[in-house]
Amino acid sequence: MNKNSSNMMALAPNTSNKRETVCIFGTGDFGRALGHKMIQSGYPVVYGSRSTQISNLIPKDAEVLSHAEAAQKAAIIIIAIQRQHYNFLTPLAEVLRGKVLVDISNNLKLNQYPESNAEYLAQLLPGSKVVKAFNTVSAWALQSGTLDASRQVFVCGDDVEAKQMVMNIVRALGLTPLDKGSLLAAQEIENYPLQLFPMWRFPIFLSLGLTAFFFLYCVALDIIYTYIYENNNFSFFIAITIPNRVCPVMALVLLALVYVPGIFAAIIQLYRGTKYRRFPDWLDKWMLCRKQLGLIALAFASLHAVFTLVTPMRAFVSWRTGKGIISQALNNKTEPLDHTNAWLSDSYLALGILGFFLFVLLGITSLPSVSNNVNWREFRFVQSKLGYLALILCTAHTLVYGGKWFLSPSAYKWYLPNIYILSLIVPCAVLVVKFVLIFPCIDKPLTQIRQGWERNPKYSE
Amino acid sequence: MNKNSSNMMALAPNTSNKRETVCIFGTGDFGRALGHKMIQSGYPVVYGSRSTQISNLIPKDAEVLSHAEAAQKAAIIIIAIQRQHYNFLTPLAEVLRGKVLVDISNNLKLNQYPESNAEYLAQLLPGSKVVKAFNTVSAWALQSGTLDASRQVFVCGDDVEAKQMVMNIVRALGLTPLDKGSLLAAQEIENYPLQLFPMWRFPIFLSLGLTAFFFLYCVALDIIYTYIYENNNFSFFIAITIPNRVCPVMALVLLALVYVPGIFAAIIQLYRGTKYRRFPDWLDKWMLCRKQLGLIALAFASLHAVFTLVTPMRAFVSWRTGKGIISQALNNKTEPLDHTNAWLSDSYLALGILGFFLFVLLGITSLPSVSNNVNWREFRFVQSKLGYLALILCTAHTLVYGGKWFLSPSAYKWYLPNIYILSLIVPCAVLVVKFVLIFPCIDKPLTQIRQGWERNPKYSE
Amino acid sequence: MNKNSSNMMALAPNTSNKRETVCIFGTGDFGRALGHKMIQSGYPVVYGSRSTQISNLIPKDAEVLSHAEAAQKAAIIIIAIQRQHYNFLTPLAEVLRGKVLVDISNNLKLNQYPESNAEYLAQLLPGSKVVKAFNTVSAWALQSGTLDASRQVFVCGDDVEAKQMVMNIVRALGLTPLDKGSLLAAQEIENYPLQLFPMWRFPIFLSLGLTAFFFLYCVALDIIYTYIYENNNFSFFIAITIPNRVCPVMALVLLALVYVPGIFAAIIQLYRGTKYRRFPDWLDKWMLCRKQLGLIALAFASLHAVFTLVTPMRAFVSWRTGKGIISQALNNKTEPLDHTNAWLSDSYLALGILGFFLFVLLGITSLPSVSNNVNWREFRFVQSKLGYLALILCTAHTLVYGGKWFLSPSAYKWYLPNIYILSLIVPCAVLVVKFVLIFPCIDKPLTQIRQGWERNPKYSE
Repeated sequence: MNKNSSNMMALAPNTSNKRETVCIFGTGDFGRALGHKMIQSGYPVVYGSRSTQISNLIPKDAEVLSHAEAAQKAAIIIIAIQRQHYNFLTPLAEVLRGKVLVDISNNLKLNQYPESNAEYLAQLLPGSKVVKAFNTVSAWALQSGTLDASRQVFVCGDDVEAKQMVMNIVRALGLTPLDKGSLLAAQEIENYPLQLFPMWRFPIFLSLGLTAFFFLYCVALDIIYTYIYENNNFSFFIAITIPNRVCPVMALVLLALVYVPGIFAAIIQLYRGTKYRRFPDWLDKWMLCRKQLGLIALAFASLHAVFTLVTPMRAFVSWRTGKGIISQALNNKTEPLDHTNAWLSDSYLALGILGFFLFVLLGITSLPSVSNNVNWREFRFVQSKLGYLALILCTAHTLVYGGKWFLSPSAYKWYLPNIYILSLIVPCAVLVVKFVLIFPCIDKPLTQIRQGWERNPKYSE
Repeated sequence: MNKNSSNMMALAPNTSNKRETVCIFGTGDFGRALGHKMIQSGYPVVYGSRSTQISNLIPKDAEVLSHAEAAQKAAIIIIAIQRQHYNFLTPLAEVLRGKVLVDISNNLKLNQYPESNAEYLAQLLPGSKVVKAFNTVSAWALQSGTLDASRQVFVCGDDVEAKQMVMNIVRALGLTPLDKGSLLAAQEIENYPLQLFPMWRFPIFLSLGLTAFFFLYCVALDIIYTYIYENNNFSFFIAITIPNRVCPVMALVLLALVYVPGIFAAIIQLYRGTKYRRFPDWLDKWMLCRKQLGLIALAFASLHAVFTLVTPMRAFVSWRTGKGIISQALNNKTEPLDHTNAWLSDSYLALGILGFFLFVLLGITSLPSVSNNVNWREFRFVQSKLGYLALILCTAHTLVYGGKWFLSPSAYKWYLPNIYILSLIVPCAVLVVKFVLIFPCIDKPLTQIRQGWERNPKYSE
Repeated sequence: MNKNSSNMMALAPNTSNKRETVCIFGTGDFGRALGHKMIQSGYPVVYGSRSTQISNLIPKDAEVLSHAEAAQKAAIIIIAIQRQHYNFLTPLAEVLRGKVLVDISNNLKLNQYPESNAEYLAQLLPGSKVVKAFNTVSAWALQSGTLDASRQVFVCGDDVEAKQMVMNIVRALGLTPLDKGSLLAAQEIENYPLQLFPMWRFPIFLSLGLTAFFFLYCVALDIIYTYIYENNNFSFFIAITIPNRVCPVMALVLLALVYVPGIFAAIIQLYRGTKYRRFPDWLDKWMLCRKQLGLIALAFASLHAVFTLVTPMRAFVSWRTGKGIISQALNNKTEPLDHTNAWLSDSYLALGILGFFLFVLLGITSLPSVSNNVNWREFRFVQSKLGYLALILCTAHTLVYGGKWFLSPSAYKWYLPNIYILSLIVPCAVLVVKFVLIFPCIDKPLTQIRQGWERNPKYSE
């Protein structure tokens, strides 16, 4: 509804005059964009400005008055000026007493000032009711009506009624207010629009680094080695063959890395005999980006799936298949079905399909709207039980696929192992340690520790 | 929780008697369905009716009284009668003074009356507190307990306490109240249940039209032409071959059309030197349905992917492959690997896979629950940067695929170009213009204009 | 935002001292975990405990006092003790008068006590304002900061202001409060964390049972029969061939079972001539798990799609294809294209692809965040119209695929039909009955009944 109805509003402005007047201090970009939108939604708008010259920048239906006059006309005043000019408001303190002041400012850097702009405004004008709002909305989006991104407007403030008034305006503009509590939340709200995927950075850089390493490793072994020693030019392997070796390796390694911090945490807790001491910082950070690691692993797994499925469409593969069949035909013989090979080929495909299926299921349950609909017990069941099952299936898929090459010397070009052998190290280690951890003699004390029990509780008097 | 718990309620009615009595005026379908549900949730229900005969339509545990008597028993009165009969309530004004009246009515057409039903009710009974609610819920769904669709109930009203009381009832019925602000929102709420995908209409009709055109174009060139001039009956191409030509063309054209309005907007703003003048209506509308266009493009791209992946399973393709191999075998020769062909085939597959992957990523971020969790900056990054990257990859995929046929005369049956040549026009134009627009000498003034700068600011005195 | 910002908090504790003091009664696991988190978020915390010895379990910055002293220091008291010890609070009734008591307790079983713990607490201390909150959050998750699961905290209570205070604390901890209404909702909130996919149980057991049956049926006919009568060992069919027979059958049967209860409901209503009588219990339950049945059907359909797409990669299939081509080559002949076969093969693939596409679309619209954005009319359109279209396409896909074998005696090993013949029974029955139900002479009275009309309305005087 939000979307459509506000869109309709944008096209057919509601000219009802029943809404209360809103005052806007400042005729900058955001002040004008907000004024436009408010007039479209039926609010009478008064601008407070130093120069009362009517600029054609300002929406036609808006009045422009001096700050004091404008403030007197409305119960809600939107402060669309920059923080460094806030102190010019102090002489107006009397006029602004009891009014609702809406701070919409943003900073240029995270935590730029010791206190948030809204708290600073509240300190300057203790008689007014300051509400933080609208800072997460883009002026350009307001102006063009294309609010495709989040329509959520975070609102916070100490006065419940003032907050309600601002939230009603937010709703009338076709946006969704989200109460974030008292004015102490303003700092967080001001930092919010400055973020660019903060939790994704480390997982993405890690993935890029690992991908580059594995890619070059494969280029060396599969293209350069072949070119030097077998004089075959397989440079076109760069397009599909090598990406389809790197993707499954990345998917498996990253999926295993999701479960590593949980295992470290268990070991640390068992060693310390308590859960009431903080983990080392690197472990804390690692735990916090597990979801992101898992989703990147899923992306690699999906790419691997598609790269594998297009195999029969590749010119190289058709040529190779044709060559095999022709050589059989020219030799006048038909090879019988190799049952072991049929078993192996079908098994690793089936294991991979099931592992990928569980992996996708994990991805779907991590969608915010799905994970909001399950309780903690259900979430743990899916992410822990099904997650480990996916890891087991994917590891088995790799083992069955690579099984026959492990001991073959031709797999060790330049004495280096093939990358799927490298990829198995982390997941196998995780599975072995996890297997040890679920032994009752270890699982029991761990469960007790997680329920608050301590091995050496020391009481000071 | 909502889902399951309310389901449990439906199965095991809560018989607690601690809830306040609710009065329902009107014994029509919705009044009865709502009464049933309220009794199940533990509310004592009193019906106000002209005839106090107890019909077996009315839930067994409900009382039926005259309107005035029923109204006196409850603080909340649900008005389950039609708007044209609202005026019979005016004689009851004294009894209804101070009571909370819940308007649950719907209209048959969008904007049927000048004011919403709830506002009309509030005008008739100025002493009562009117709250709009429940109109978005279906009586049939309430009755059968199968509220699979949205459990959201939009609530609006001018009295905060009255709204709270109604929202508590909504919650007790296992539904989720959504505060939409003051009673002015009632019009919008009354229009909501009448909509049938309003933002999807134009994109869907456009897609259907284009699809029909491209389909017939392909049938003419691939089936009819071949039948006439080469005497081959390839009518079965209708099932997969031709859909798999139309789908990628549609996906590419629609994806490009998503980015066209943004380019038009930039050109218009550069020409006008200001962002403070409205775009032409067609551009506004086009901008508002970009998300829908993109999602339909994604649907076509997905179909293209699946249609391509089933290729090796088609009887025709197996036959053609077999024929090629047999003819080689019969001629006693094995063709060597064509490296150029291997490069081309692998490149366009890899480009297509990566383009499709980014496309799916864009689709996932446009899910409401995901886009609500990213801020404006992150959303712009994904939709603009990744979106253009997807467009570039998909265009390159088509170029590499079709490359060798561009200059071949056999590709121009009846002097008409193949459809993938047609499909490249819009995306190439978009990419070229966008490339020009990111030149610093053009990008700088555009950024300034979007930040509120104007080339010719005219001040009137 | 929630995620990231609260994570940042976890890493960089806010040391602001402006927040009001919170008192926690009880130093058990959850009390300590909550205290840790509150101190991190800037709340001064006072513990009320029988022994005021300072244990190192308790967060360093917290004070520990006797219950009465601690309660006097704060307006909000979190009761982190078990229900069986609530009665020890009665002597403190005077101290607790007017205070906000937050009940965070959980039970071990669904509906363990006649009244919820929060209501029991409110009865014991009628002078205090009891709010239920935090019980859906895990202590372990609070402690480790890894709140990947739902950040929703259900809050209910009879005092609006007390609820607001608690909701502000919830927000300050980086969680999302969800107002569930009055204290009557406490029972439901206490049951919530104990559930483990209650609505999924029946559909999952049903699917497992049917899958096992169809799997064994296939093993008998495809492996054992072939081994006995044709002396061929196809045991490797267990990995892919047979799963890829069972999955489509399960998908089709479960999809049809989604539409069976709606048809039963229509027949029952037509027979009874009213919608105001409850359906039998089994039908109610069946209707409530339709969404789950549909999603499991979609899972099977997805597996079927992937199993089918890997076909050309299987060693067995390559061998069979090669054998066919070689035998043609050795016989020096090329078979001409079989047009009927090309038509059939392309048609069933195309039907399957379109059916699967619609099926995925249904799955996407059943995501909570998507279905919250469509109104009832739109939801019905998608789930009913598109759902039946998907069922028709999938049934047609199976019919075209199996068509040629229906009458062939070789399809009836041991006189048993092939499973795709079994799989067609339910969907065909559903489609035939639905086809009858949309005849105007039947559809009209049904629509009237669903709008509240009754065939035999009996009025008692």
